[in-house]
This record gives sequence, C-alpha cells and structure tokens, in this order.
Amino acid sequence: MTLRATGEDFRTIWLKPDDRATVQIIDQRKLPHNYVIADLQTYRDGMFAISEMLVRGAPLIGATAAWSMYLAALECSSSDKPLEFLAKAAGEIGSTRPTAINLQWALDRVMQCAQEATRADDLVATLRAEAELICDEDIAISRGIGEHGLSIIEEISKRKSGDTVNILTHCNAGALATVNWGTATAPIYFAHQKGLKVHVWVDETRPRNQGSQLTAWELAENGVPHTLIVDNAGGHLMQHGKVDLCITGTDRTTRSGDVANKIGTYLKALAAHDNGIPFYVALPSTTIDWSISDGIADIPIEERDPREVTHIVGKVDGEVREVNTVASNTRISNFAFDVTPARLVTGLITEAGVCSASEEGLTELFPELARRTR
Amino acid sequence: MTLRATGEDFRTIWLKPDDRATVQIIDQRKLPHNYVIADLQTYRDGMFAISEMLVRGAPLIGATAAWSMYLAALECSSSDKPLEFLAKAAGEIGSTRPTAINLQWALDRVMQCAQEATRADDLVATLRAEAELICDEDIAISRGIGEHGLSIIEEISKRKSGDTVNILTHCNAGALATVNWGTATAPIYFAHQKGLKVHVWVDETRPRNQGSQLTAWELAENGVPHTLIVDNAGGHLMQHGKVDLCITGTDRTTRSGDVANKIGTYLKALAAHDNGIPFYVALPSTTIDWSISDGIADIPIEERDPREVTHIVGKVDGEVREVNTVASNTRISNFAFDVTPARLVTGLITEAGVCSASEEGLTELFPELARRTR
Repeated sequence: MTLRATGEDFRTIWLKPDDRATVQIIDQRKLPHNYVIADLQTYRDGMFAISEMLVRGAPLIGATAAWSMYLAALECSSSDKPLEFLAKAAGEIGSTRPTAINLQWALDRVMQCAQEATRADDLVATLRAEAELICDEDIAISRGIGEHGLSIIEEISKRKSGDTVNILTHCNAGALATVNWGTATAPIYFAHQKGLKVHVWVDETRPRNQGSQLTAWELAENGVPHTLIVDNAGGHLMQHGKVDLCITGTDRTTRSGDVANKIGTYLKALAAHDNGIPFYVALPSTTIDWSISDGIADIPIEERDPREVTHIVGKVDGEVREVNTVASNTRISNFAFDVTPARLVTGLITEAGVCSASEEGLTELFPELARRTR
Repeated sequence: MTLRATGEDFRTIWLKPDDRATVQIIDQRKLPHNYVIADLQTYRDGMFAISEMLVRGAPLIGATAAWSMYLAALECSSSDKPLEFLAKAAGEIGSTRPTAINLQWALDRVMQCAQEATRADDLVATLRAEAELICDEDIAISRGIGEHGLSIIEEISKRKSGDTVNILTHCNAGALATVNWGTATAPIYFAHQKGLKVHVWVDETRPRNQGSQLTAWELAENGVPHTLIVDNAGGHLMQHGKVDLCITGTDRTTRSGDVANKIGTYLKALAAHDNGIPFYVALPSTTIDWSISDGIADIPIEERDPREVTHIVGKVDGEVREVNTVASNTRISNFAFDVTPARLVTGLITEAGVCSASEEGLTELFPELARRTR
C-alpha cells in the first residue's frame, strides 16, 4: 500500500536528492490551489516553516524540528562550541509552537544524540541519521495506528453489512500532519485500500481551514470519497444518523487521556457523546505528556495571529489572493486548540493498540513510558 | 433608547419617502464592507431579496414577505382577479425559504386582510397598513424580548458585582434580523444602554459569516464591546469561565420548546450544558410552530448552495472580491440549520416573558395561541 500526492509516492519532508544541505517540504499554506515544494537551508528556515505553518501537525512538527537540528549542525560545523550552538538552536526552535509536545520531544532526542557524538563531522552524520530515524519511526507509528484503527472500521462495516462507514474528522491529522499516512486518516486509508466502503465528512476547520485545504486535498489525491462541511454541521449530521464514527488527532494527550487538539474538537466530542457515536482519537505515543493529568487546567493553549481569522486565501480569476472578510476595527480572539476531556473519548488509537482514554489504558499499552516519568 | 446604523436611526425595511411604489432594505450581503440600500419595486424583487439573503432572519423575512405582498397588490390593481393574483404571489413568495415559519405566518395574515378588502384600491391601502402594522408589532415584540431578557443579564451582573457579563451569540439574531432591536441582541442592547457592562463573543457563523459580517457590524455601530471568534472556539471559552450566558435566536420553535436555528447552535448548547452555563433562546411568538413537537424529526432543514461554503467575500486592495477557498472538485454538503432539543435550553425569552423550553412553559405564556391550534 502506498499513498500518493500529485501521482507521486508521498512524503511530507525529505532530504533533497543530490544536495545534502537542503531539506524539502510541501508548503502546506499553498494547498489546495498550488502544490509547492519549499527548500529549508538553515535551522531558521525550519523555524519559519513551523511557526508560519508551512508544516503543521504534531508528528510533522517533530520531524521538521529534527531536520532543522541537522541543518543547525551543518551551520555550526566550523564553530568552536557546536553543542552550545545546537542547544541555542534547539531553544529557539522549541519556542515556535507551545502546544505540540512532539516538538520538544524531537529536540530533546536530537540533543541527546548530539551529546553522544564526539567530533563535529560525526555530529552532522549523527543528526542526519537521527532525523531519518525519527521520520522512519513516524511512518511505522502511522502504520501501526492504521492497522489498529482499521479493526474499528471493519467492525462497523460488518455491523452495517458492508454499507458505507461514514467517518467525521476535524482539522488535518492526515498524511500531511505526519511524514506519511497520518494519524486519524491512517485507519481510513487502510480501510479504503483494503476495499471497505468509507466516506469521510471533512470539517472545514476554521480559522486556518486545514480540513478544506489539506484533508480534502489528500483524500482526493488518494481517491477516498469525502464531503466537505462547515464546522457547525457535524452535530446535525450526527442527530440524523449520518455519522458512524469520529476520528481526530491530538497535539498533546495527558496521562489521564485528555486530548488537546485543534479548536472545536471538544464540540464534536460533545455531539458524538450526545448521539451515542464512538469518538476515537488517534495518536503516536510521542504526543503523550506523562507529566500532566488535567488537560483543561495544565495544557497551555496557543493564541495565534488574529489575521488567521480575518483573512483567507482563495482563488479569484485564476489568481490566488488573500481577502479580509471582517471590518478592520473588529477585535479578534484566536485560540488554536481546545481540550477534550477523557470522559468524552471512546478510545485512543495508538501504534501499540487501542485503549481506553485513561491512565490505566495508556499505562497498559506503554508501561515503560509510564514508569519512566513516575 | 434608539439603535443606530451609520449614525442614523435604525430600521431594516421601510417604504421609500415620497415614493409609495418602492420598498427599501439594507442589502445585507454587502455588509460590513459597504452599506448599500436596495430598492424593491415588484414582489419578485422581494422574493429575490429573501431567497438571495439580501434580508434574512425570521422576523425580517416575515416583514419583507408582507411588504412584497403590498408590492404585489400594486402590480395587480388593474387586474380582474386581484385575489387570485395575490394568492399566486403568496405561493411563490412562500417557496423561497422553507425553514422560517414567519414567512408563511406573514403571508397568511396578509392574505386574510386581502380577502376582507372589497375593492382594488382598498386592497393596496389595506396591505400597506398591514405591512406597516407587522413592522410596528415586530419592533414592539423585540422591545418586549429586550425587557424580559434584560432581567436575566441584570441578575448575572449583580452576581458578578457589576463585572462584565460575557454573552456568547451565534449567527445574527440582531437588529438586522428583525425590523429593529433584534431578538437575541435586544436584551444586550437594553443592558448596554442601561449602563450595565456587557461583552459579546460573536461566533463567526460559517458558512455565511453572519456573525462576523452582521452581528459584529451592528454591535460596533451601537458601541457594544464585542470580540469575534471562530465557531470552533466557544467550547474552549466556556471551559475556562469566559462565558456567563448564551443567547441565540431561532427560526422555528416547536410547541415542546425544540428550536431550529442556524447550523451549529446545537453544538454551543451542548457546550453550555456541559459547563453549567445558561443557554437562552430569544424568540417572537410568531416563530412558534404549534403544530409540531419533535423538532429533530419534524422541522425540514434547508440545504443551500454549496457556493456558500466554497466562496467568500472580502476586501483585497480596497476592492470587494469573492474568492474560492476550496479545490474545484470538492463535494460539499450545506445544511443551513440544526435543531437544539429543549432539554439543552435553559429558557425561552419571548415578548410575553421568559419561560421554560416546554409545552407547559409556552402554553402558560401564550394560552390563546396554544388553544387555537389544538
């Protein structure tokens, strides 16, 4: 099984062929109107890509952070104190997005590798190998999530005698949010490629429209039937039996199973709960923050630029333009995430299996991770 | 107390001064970027204004329907069979928007007046008087809602020792949705003009952005503090104690207190319920459909043009343009309303008082209306 983008095999980040000093990404701000590949040549390019959301999604942010550290290693190879330079770079990169826990996880992991490398040359090779490893592991994790989540879809499909399984998703926890396959989308791609009938309700996902601009795009590229809806519509569809299952991603999961995800996820979880519809959250174990338990009290929620709410990019007369949809004197509040309490989550789909959204569930699947942070 | 728009006294529909053959409205599609007055000179102009949403909001749709019948009376005054002509016009006007119950209510009322008028000349004068009466009554109704809803805000303000009362509203159940004052906004305007500290969280309200384009505009015109948020944000704000009260409007209310309102209202009601925040719905008694009880099963939900989801109007380089934000091959679903079950509604604010969202509550406030439909 493979995923495609513009007919090619899919990856969201890679080292440029024949140019070891350039990392390449898809500039996701340009989708769906244009498929543009962006070059990262310094770690600050990587920071820009993360903070300006050329890349987004917790796993891909982690991968981009790792590759940015590789670029930093290239930049500092002639410096006297490479570890200090790298630590400074890691600090700067770590400050770009406060909510995604993978960012710090990837930076910590790369810094530990760097500390174990002795010579400057080693450093570059070591950090390249580590970034590649993080990407390969991320793909393996997505595949694991895909396999475990597939069984949930198969069960519903069986119950519906092979009829279409309607799955609602919010934001983009898709292939574009990871290195490949996605988290929330991995079970959907696996089900579709196995020949099960699936249909995806794609939440537009204001303010940045990652649903309409990214999820719809990657589902279309891979032939998965889908329908775009505004964020307001999901509750109505659930009331009328048009949703069999919700799957979203998460940027940070507490050890008790609370999940921070794109703003609005909580509202869909409430509606699913009210209508007896299973609400699953797909996540790599790297998004688990074992240090906290109360997501609503303890997860810092990033406030982003009001411009994300007031301005929107679209096509007019074949040209891509940005329009301001709001009167210029309007005050805006723009929280990027909300927290869905564990009580509203039917289960967590991880690379190691499906568990209840609880400390018991997570500890059973990841006993070592749980122990390490006690 | 008066409301203002561009510094003038406010009305959303009126007979043009010195021209009894022209009805004027604010073309609400053009707000907030431009304040444009549109002329209606035939009943088909009125139909266009309703179906294309130059006017929207259940009470204003009713008022526009009444004025459209007046225009029809002008058109048919030389005809042989004016009542047949009017009945045909009423049928056409009634088909423009299926969910708003006021539309049919206003048409029925005007047709009954027409049947009581004997000569063609009488007909025009009678229908003009009836349209004016419907508008005056609508203003009186909004004032009644304002006064009764004010007491709810006053109570919260007192409990907060005069601190700002944060009120979330969805869509535009504002002055622009009525002839003046609004339904959901009437208590807010009354509280603000009485000197209470209020602040309004304005839901953007996709797909047509009536919140960002209409509610934010009219609150700004009248100096009411407000902040625009995306529809996804309300749950997060409620979790963090930033909302004291929700007030929305409704397009149709069942006799059991279920309310059909702009798509997404149900999600906010769920979040309010989950966080113990009062959720009130403001309505004129004309939006009560005494013939039905189960809102989810029995209220037809209008599906509108996918273009409302894919295209958005905004300003670029000082020019108002419409952009397409979605890939052209994307399938869209666009339900305009959802139904919030009575169990999630704290109370109904009507022109006759505040009652529980139940048949008992409504019957107590409107015993005659309840009896008439048994």
